[in-house]
Amino acid sequence: MDNKFQELQVRLSEIHDLNSAAAVLGWDQATYMPPGGAPARGRQMATLGRIAQEKFIDPAIGRLLDDLRSYEESLPDDHDDAALIRVARREYERATKIPPALIGEFSEHQAMAYDAWTRARPANDFASVRPLLEKTLDFSRQLADCFPGYEHIADPLIDFADYGMKAASVRVLFAELREELVPIVRAITEQPVADDSCLKQHYPEDKQLAFGQDIIKKFGYDFNRGRQDKTHHPFMTSFSLGDVRITTRVKENDLGEALFSTTHEAGHALYEQGIDMKFEGSLLAAGTSAGVHESQSRTWENLVSRSRPFWEHFYPDLQATFPEQLGKVELDSFYRAINKVQKSLIRTDADEVTYNLHVMIRFDLELQMLEGTLAVKDLPEAWHARYQSDLGLTAPSDVDGCLQDVHWYGGWIGGSFQGYTIGNILSALFFSHAEKAHPEIKAEIAKGEFGTLHNWLRTNVYRSGNKFTAPELIERVTGGPLRIEPYINYLRAKYGELYQL
Amino acid sequence: MDNKFQELQVRLSEIHDLNSAAAVLGWDQATYMPPGGAPARGRQMATLGRIAQEKFIDPAIGRLLDDLRSYEESLPDDHDDAALIRVARREYERATKIPPALIGEFSEHQAMAYDAWTRARPANDFASVRPLLEKTLDFSRQLADCFPGYEHIADPLIDFADYGMKAASVRVLFAELREELVPIVRAITEQPVADDSCLKQHYPEDKQLAFGQDIIKKFGYDFNRGRQDKTHHPFMTSFSLGDVRITTRVKENDLGEALFSTTHEAGHALYEQGIDMKFEGSLLAAGTSAGVHESQSRTWENLVSRSRPFWEHFYPDLQATFPEQLGKVELDSFYRAINKVQKSLIRTDADEVTYNLHVMIRFDLELQMLEGTLAVKDLPEAWHARYQSDLGLTAPSDVDGCLQDVHWYGGWIGGSFQGYTIGNILSALFFSHAEKAHPEIKAEIAKGEFGTLHNWLRTNVYRSGNKFTAPELIERVTGGPLRIEPYINYLRAKYGELYQL
Repeated sequence: MDNKFQELQVRLSEIHDLNSAAAVLGWDQATYMPPGGAPARGRQMATLGRIAQEKFIDPAIGRLLDDLRSYEESLPDDHDDAALIRVARREYERATKIPPALIGEFSEHQAMAYDAWTRARPANDFASVRPLLEKTLDFSRQLADCFPGYEHIADPLIDFADYGMKAASVRVLFAELREELVPIVRAITEQPVADDSCLKQHYPEDKQLAFGQDIIKKFGYDFNRGRQDKTHHPFMTSFSLGDVRITTRVKENDLGEALFSTTHEAGHALYEQGIDMKFEGSLLAAGTSAGVHESQSRTWENLVSRSRPFWEHFYPDLQATFPEQLGKVELDSFYRAINKVQKSLIRTDADEVTYNLHVMIRFDLELQMLEGTLAVKDLPEAWHARYQSDLGLTAPSDVDGCLQDVHWYGGWIGGSFQGYTIGNILSALFFSHAEKAHPEIKAEIAKGEFGTLHNWLRTNVYRSGNKFTAPELIERVTGGPLRIEPYINYLRAKYGELYQL
Repeated sequence: MDNKFQELQVRLSEIHDLNSAAAVLGWDQATYMPPGGAPARGRQMATLGRIAQEKFIDPAIGRLLDDLRSYEESLPDDHDDAALIRVARREYERATKIPPALIGEFSEHQAMAYDAWTRARPANDFASVRPLLEKTLDFSRQLADCFPGYEHIADPLIDFADYGMKAASVRVLFAELREELVPIVRAITEQPVADDSCLKQHYPEDKQLAFGQDIIKKFGYDFNRGRQDKTHHPFMTSFSLGDVRITTRVKENDLGEALFSTTHEAGHALYEQGIDMKFEGSLLAAGTSAGVHESQSRTWENLVSRSRPFWEHFYPDLQATFPEQLGKVELDSFYRAINKVQKSLIRTDADEVTYNLHVMIRFDLELQMLEGTLAVKDLPEAWHARYQSDLGLTAPSDVDGCLQDVHWYGGWIGGSFQGYTIGNILSALFFSHAEKAHPEIKAEIAKGEFGTLHNWLRTNVYRSGNKFTAPELIERVTGGPLRIEPYINYLRAKYGELYQL
């Protein structure tokens, strides 16, 4: 049995290496690659992806998994080997259910749709991508239909990102959340909008970058096992547990841009850097779901680096770094500026209170398109209608309407957005448990110390990597299922104080 | 036949993609990778190399090559398809003759020997690497023995780098060259050593880099299809014909370091960037041999950027860039400084006159070790003896003796060095033909223009990539075999003037 398990590990490690190599190529493409490298780079990444896929669906892996069933069953559920076999089987069964031809055709179509979108968005030309999006919808349905027996057609697609969640359970969660959120948003937006002009002065790039890096170093981000570079759309990427990189984007006329994208991506990276080194090179060396990953980026971005205790410590440093810009700005004004709440049209610019309303709109529209109750041709109007009813705003065009997000154009329709809101909810749930165990956490943050929080998260959330599913992990850490109360309490407390609600 | 040829192309392109991906990982490792990435990176690159090798020795490729023989024979020799089939067959036959187990064991051993060398060199501890080097010699012999029927055991190993050359022909070439070189070296070194202290002042890094980049842009290096980054040991690497990168190393107390490593690596890169785009992704999209590649780095480093006409144009710019350091240094003094000839212990620091003597020592020692006339245990003394007899110097230790170069420790023994001298000889041969066709080349260089030279090289040398072997290419371009006269004439003319010989 030892031999079989070892053979499985060797095969999975080879596939992991191919995927890691593709990640390096992707990072290079987004950071340093000269323009002339683009055509070959697309082909190279496709080749690596295809070979990794071929090697993963090799029937020899299926036979190994069959042979290893008795070994798996002889082990406790939370044994590392049992978890690896379990995760490998889940992924293998998923991968082998999708015909390679479908993957090939869909990938090719995605590349085309993405390319068309990059031109259609600036031109406000939904008509030009409509037939492509219709085909994407068709492919997305085909993809879901590879997994018959679902309750809702979106379920298999949600599974890709947030294993164990279903359209129905997300709907219930989102309905509960909406009920609590709407009155909070209303109460805040009835008041005058916070003044964030202090953030919109000129802030030199090098000082912004140095300040952000200093902060994430204090969080515990290990620059010996990572680095930060500049890119257009910030992201975190991992090449191994010893090389977890982040990227950021600097706007010299907006202090918030690089600072919070840095703490956000560092949150993702702390998760990956915190995975137990014994999982290196295996399927377990990854975050467990989109939602759990996002919970960590949001923890460090919002719960930590947009909190009052955090700035009680760091604001004097920031003022010393930018004395001309902030020397005369009070901590209170700065704190209000970085937590300004305002109904807006763009998800990625939204504050943490209204953000989830943007996600819910997209989640509902995805489901309607998959169900067939919303035709792609009617998407622009449906988008505008929902923004009007949910946020009281209508985008002047589709540029900031249904052409706004890359997800449907570069990926598929279904399961693309729920992870963001699950992450927000979960960040507060985990944080509340960390605080219960260590009530001193906020006081430590106010001293610029993050060790207790980081250790708690590493021990309880990061270390296990992909060993447990998100629902299992949440159950293990919190003793129950995902629930919204801590998140609502967090928002009420923070914004109640900010807006004297 | 079309289908078979296409299938061959598809298979070779997949292998090319894997090798290109490995090159990206290697570049990242040498430029930006954080230390924590090292262990996994070694494994990832080994995985890519192994998969590429497995795919290349797939008997299906052998069958395709057999099936394509009649197609190949129906074409003129210089037809692109014929060349691709010919090169693929040559490489396939070579690859299939080496047992995969030997490759695996040797690679593993090389990694170990390299690692040991990185510690042994600073510690002047040849004894610690001696058993490893003995094993390397054994592996090198095994490798050569995969190709029975050789005249000299080094021939198959020389073939890897400089296809078509043999120990015997290199020996003849080197003997001729030595006979001409030795009196030149003697005549120069009887005179006072040139004063290069003007180069050893403080030169800020950013200005050095900007100046070098400005120059290679004028050479024709295309930054839209490449970039320059910093590293420990400068190199050129190609990920596709649209992405050919160079690296450099800056010493703030030595102006020559970055400047000439930049023009050297740019020469390699101009070769790769100049390959016909129709060869992209194929086996023909590469330089044809170590010697031809080095001829181009040496052309742009020595024949161009260490020439008097070049500095007649650029020296005022350099003075304007570094007015404090060079404002009062005459062009003549600067020109003598960058062309200082001095017998020395270190190959990579050697001037262009003595450089080849360093290469010949290594070439001879390699051959003796392979022949069994020199035991590895006697290498340190043999090294010192040769430096004494050839250069009149003895290194104080093995650090700058036989531990000096990485080649034997990170690679194999045999064929590792001759390319450097072949490159020097060939640079002058090609250049003499370029000048014959365009006598205005030097006058253009004196105006800071390189278009005529670059175009001639592109048309005659670069464009064809790996389509012709080095001997074929030399024959096509010069109408005869490799010959040393133009190189000797070049050295005599340049150093005759510099040293009034």
